[in-house]
Amino acid sequence: MTDFASAADHKWMLHALELARLGQFTTAPNPNVGCVLVKDGELVAEGWHRCAGEPHAEVHALQAAGGRARGATAYVTLEPCSHYGRTPPCADALIRAQVARVVVAMEDPNPQVAGAGLARLKAAGIDVVSGVQSAAAERLNQGFCARMRRQRPWLRVKLAASLDGATALANGESQWITGGADVQVWRAKSHAILTGADTVLMDDPQLTVRLNEWPKGVCKPVPEQLRQPIKVVVDSRQRVTRQARIYQHQAEVWRASPSARDAQDLVVPQCGQFIDLALLMQQLAERGINELWSECGPRLAGALLAQQLVDELIIYQAPKLMGASARQLLQLPQFEQMDEVPELDIRDVRYVGTDLRIIAQPRYSLVKLG
Amino acid sequence: MTDFASAADHKWMLHALELARLGQFTTAPNPNVGCVLVKDGELVAEGWHRCAGEPHAEVHALQAAGGRARGATAYVTLEPCSHYGRTPPCADALIRAQVARVVVAMEDPNPQVAGAGLARLKAAGIDVVSGVQSAAAERLNQGFCARMRRQRPWLRVKLAASLDGATALANGESQWITGGADVQVWRAKSHAILTGADTVLMDDPQLTVRLNEWPKGVCKPVPEQLRQPIKVVVDSRQRVTRQARIYQHQAEVWRASPSARDAQDLVVPQCGQFIDLALLMQQLAERGINELWSECGPRLAGALLAQQLVDELIIYQAPKLMGASARQLLQLPQFEQMDEVPELDIRDVRYVGTDLRIIAQPRYSLVKLG
Repeated sequence: MTDFASAADHKWMLHALELARLGQFTTAPNPNVGCVLVKDGELVAEGWHRCAGEPHAEVHALQAAGGRARGATAYVTLEPCSHYGRTPPCADALIRAQVARVVVAMEDPNPQVAGAGLARLKAAGIDVVSGVQSAAAERLNQGFCARMRRQRPWLRVKLAASLDGATALANGESQWITGGADVQVWRAKSHAILTGADTVLMDDPQLTVRLNEWPKGVCKPVPEQLRQPIKVVVDSRQRVTRQARIYQHQAEVWRASPSARDAQDLVVPQCGQFIDLALLMQQLAERGINELWSECGPRLAGALLAQQLVDELIIYQAPKLMGASARQLLQLPQFEQMDEVPELDIRDVRYVGTDLRIIAQPRYSLVKLG
Repeated sequence: MTDFASAADHKWMLHALELARLGQFTTAPNPNVGCVLVKDGELVAEGWHRCAGEPHAEVHALQAAGGRARGATAYVTLEPCSHYGRTPPCADALIRAQVARVVVAMEDPNPQVAGAGLARLKAAGIDVVSGVQSAAAERLNQGFCARMRRQRPWLRVKLAASLDGATALANGESQWITGGADVQVWRAKSHAILTGADTVLMDDPQLTVRLNEWPKGVCKPVPEQLRQPIKVVVDSRQRVTRQARIYQHQAEVWRASPSARDAQDLVVPQCGQFIDLALLMQQLAERGINELWSECGPRLAGALLAQQLVDELIIYQAPKLMGASARQLLQLPQFEQMDEVPELDIRDVRYVGTDLRIIAQPRYSLVKLG
């Protein structure tokens, strides 16, 4: 009996994380979870969670293992559940299967249940290790963790500009907007897409995942399992009509305004120039939104940032210079001192075609990347 | 006798390029040149050019080799000279020393003399190979090549901004300006620094190389050999006085305006809101400026770019967002169509502390990097 992790434990957990990732386009509002059963250094069975309502990762693995689960070590990327949801508790299933040891990457991020699954396993005499590859596991379920811990989705805001921060010429011309294929991946990974009435009225985007535009070499959703993200439109003055292209697809559209028009609309009181955006985030979390991807204009993006609701900025920079008369990326409050300016931590920089893509986190962000 | 290069030739040329680089802070207006003498696969002697008026790289190497130069192969990063300048022709010295073979990285970029040195060697029965590691050799002497080929220095413009392209708050506060230690290296590598009267009057910079601010781990000039770059000030309306801090140091200051005040001033006719910047570049080339580094404001930087005089942009991006009301990086003409917008090729992206440094070349640039 040991309560620390070996190199082999890390190796198997990484394998379980790979399995978990297979559900990245389909599990929301549930988290991505992978499970591996190992005995005498050999893989016995594996499983991953595909979709809410279907069996959890542990159940898939235990079913595949049958009697061979007895005495095995179970590697699970998230603490096994201990409560009856749409499926019975996985902790009980592991106990019944008589596994000898359970290694988890992280505890359940819901502060009200965290540790209960592990306690149940320990009480049944199972050896339990927690925290193996926890940073990777946190990253994999950023949205789920954000919703559980702070009742807000993980909000990513896309910005696209020239190297000098312009989004369009003074006359509005801007058909060069960047991001391209890469944006399809962020949309597909997201449970919902947030935009503003300005963007809908001016650009009339579809905001759908288009697999024919998917970038080469990136793991792609299976077409028949593709779920189009819900579209959330901040529409304080109720200007968006059903003629907008966002309504031309099967994906749900949730309009957020001070009063509802359709059953699924979100009612959020006015607050300054927009509705109360913090309250909107809370309502989206209540509806189970884990990862929220925003493609919006400079006013809404600036307001989200100024209200400290943005968790990550995905900034595409096109190798162009447009000059000071061009339209700018963000409308922020006019700062008087440099220490009022939002500071970012740059997490990743890479080429996307000939553009640069910078991933940055505002310093105020509560949940840091691993 | 072969006229193609072997792997060993490339290896020795890379060594000669390393030697040439030792002169990077001191050879201007001369190019950086390195020379290696090799016989039977063994290094016989090496040399590099340190400073105009002192012996060329080949002479250093031949002196060190003495009689052992006979029958050796000489690797030289630039075609040996064939004319009498401040020193006698190196081609003749190589012939007299009876080397058997000369391998050069590139021909002399001056179209009027290119190839004459090699022809002289061939006429003396020496085996000659040219073009070994030519891209690296071009890069090493970008400024010299630009001046020889198009009678203009190689102009690098420094830009520093937040991720959304702002340089200062609307009220002017901006003490965060980026680049820091890295800028010292660019200044030291440059033969002259270009700035504008606005910058001198507003910021009153020294524009000196300060070795105590030099970045760690970067090859540093020897203090007693440090040459402070010449300061060139675009001062169309003759507003800069001798009280400016640029005058408080031993380095020369060349004011460029429609009429001269001091003997060394450049007389350049007015042209639009500035003096004729293309003519200024030509005059700087005539005065032997190879590499020109610019630290200037949004008006001058924009004008240089709009007039297609910029060869490289060195863009420092601080991980901050300042909003559309902040001061912008570049004043460019107001474009009406996207195809008028300057496009860049991004050559290099790296972290400089927590900032990003992007090196980009405008597409119009005549001399491409290797």
